[in-house]
Amino acid sequence: MGVGGNNAETMTTGKDTKPDIVVAALVVIGEEILSGRTRDENIAYIGAYLSRAGIALREVRVIADEEEEIVAAVNQLRHRYTYVFTTGGIGPTHDDVTTDAIAKAFEVGVGLDDDAVNALRRHFDDKELTQARLRMARIPDGAELIDNAISRAPGYRIGNVIVMAGVPHIMQVMLDAVLPKLDKGQPMLTRSVRIDAPEGDVAAPLAALQTACPKVQIGSYPFFEQKRLGTYVVLRSTDEQSLDDAYEGLWRIIVENGFEAAKAETG
Amino acid sequence: MGVGGNNAETMTTGKDTKPDIVVAALVVIGEEILSGRTRDENIAYIGAYLSRAGIALREVRVIADEEEEIVAAVNQLRHRYTYVFTTGGIGPTHDDVTTDAIAKAFEVGVGLDDDAVNALRRHFDDKELTQARLRMARIPDGAELIDNAISRAPGYRIGNVIVMAGVPHIMQVMLDAVLPKLDKGQPMLTRSVRIDAPEGDVAAPLAALQTACPKVQIGSYPFFEQKRLGTYVVLRSTDEQSLDDAYEGLWRIIVENGFEAAKAETG
Repeated sequence: MGVGGNNAETMTTGKDTKPDIVVAALVVIGEEILSGRTRDENIAYIGAYLSRAGIALREVRVIADEEEEIVAAVNQLRHRYTYVFTTGGIGPTHDDVTTDAIAKAFEVGVGLDDDAVNALRRHFDDKELTQARLRMARIPDGAELIDNAISRAPGYRIGNVIVMAGVPHIMQVMLDAVLPKLDKGQPMLTRSVRIDAPEGDVAAPLAALQTACPKVQIGSYPFFEQKRLGTYVVLRSTDEQSLDDAYEGLWRIIVENGFEAAKAETG
Repeated sequence: MGVGGNNAETMTTGKDTKPDIVVAALVVIGEEILSGRTRDENIAYIGAYLSRAGIALREVRVIADEEEEIVAAVNQLRHRYTYVFTTGGIGPTHDDVTTDAIAKAFEVGVGLDDDAVNALRRHFDDKELTQARLRMARIPDGAELIDNAISRAPGYRIGNVIVMAGVPHIMQVMLDAVLPKLDKGQPMLTRSVRIDAPEGDVAAPLAALQTACPKVQIGSYPFFEQKRLGTYVVLRSTDEQSLDDAYEGLWRIIVENGFEAAKAETG
């Protein structure tokens, strides 16, 4: 699509400048998502959050809470992307197996971390700090803790893998805590237009525009409202001038074809 | 987790019986999901739909509309699961590259399919049936069409891969159309209980219950309502007797520990 591509190394335009692209993958660990019991809220949140920050989410995997599945996914992805984020499976119950899997993926040990135990002590008294809850202070050797301002049980970062809770509001504070420490590329700039014509009518001129604007990723998304088909067109680029040119080209198409259209919320 | 596991072959308990487990993967093709612009609705729908039908969704991948990404994902997954479902990327625009990718994955050609063209003719007159719209009748050689009762542009099945639209209500009619032709295993039976105690209090007896009930998958999902933490416990099994035993065991735990609890909606 002109931009993107999966590069484990970040690409730089020169010394002392931001890398053009920092790419990431997300592993959503949770049987409840696969069974359809819970509708995932984290993918869209993390995708938009990272995109604004200058990190492009290029792949998501949803897998069950099974150690060997987690090891395989993390080991495949961590060599391919700048960062791998995981959500889920770091709670106190028997089906929380993420930490053991991460330690196995990195071939390191796992044990009670003093700082993590102390964080839990600020939230739980001695009676409450059961063996089960202490499981949440088991951290792979060499990992760096990520603060959890809500329920104290920390996430952590090991190598380029960032391990977070699955509960959305806890995941979100962990993301806020870790973001300042991550490499960021140029933020993705976007423009969106809503066209009240079906994709089939928009397709040919849009394909020509994509050919003319290789630095801009042009996405076309059909919608169906009040029994009529329409198309959202989304332009995405890290280069503002290229984006401006494509946006102008898009409005030329709209005027020439007599489409009804309006600027839409970007995203 | 006792049940599940990724087996390309379905396991059978004997001749003339349903296979115990039919496993599937889903590939969600769409830059708009990765960028967070669109919140996916298909994963939860497909997960729950297949689970009710006796097909266990074991893995989901979300990838961009890029041919090489799609080829890699489909070729990895189709040898590992009974079925691979895909959503997205079969519309008329330049960023709809799924069909070419599927043909490449199976190393077959792709061309206009007469039946698919005829289906489009029932929806579009000659003037409307542009080159762009005809793209939707390009089908990989050897694929079998899947009816689309809404907008006529068909999905298709090739080998064990089922290619569907990304627009939820169109994907849903395609799923209805293809389901009767798929192998199904024992449907997954579930029971859920809501316990008004945090996971940390429930964890120890729940781990013991899981050890005692290897044929039942016991999931524990924290929730946060009215400033109090609670736990949903979900029991899942294809074997009713084992499920009944685990459910009884769970209520014994609830009574012995004096937890407040209530039967919850299954899922």
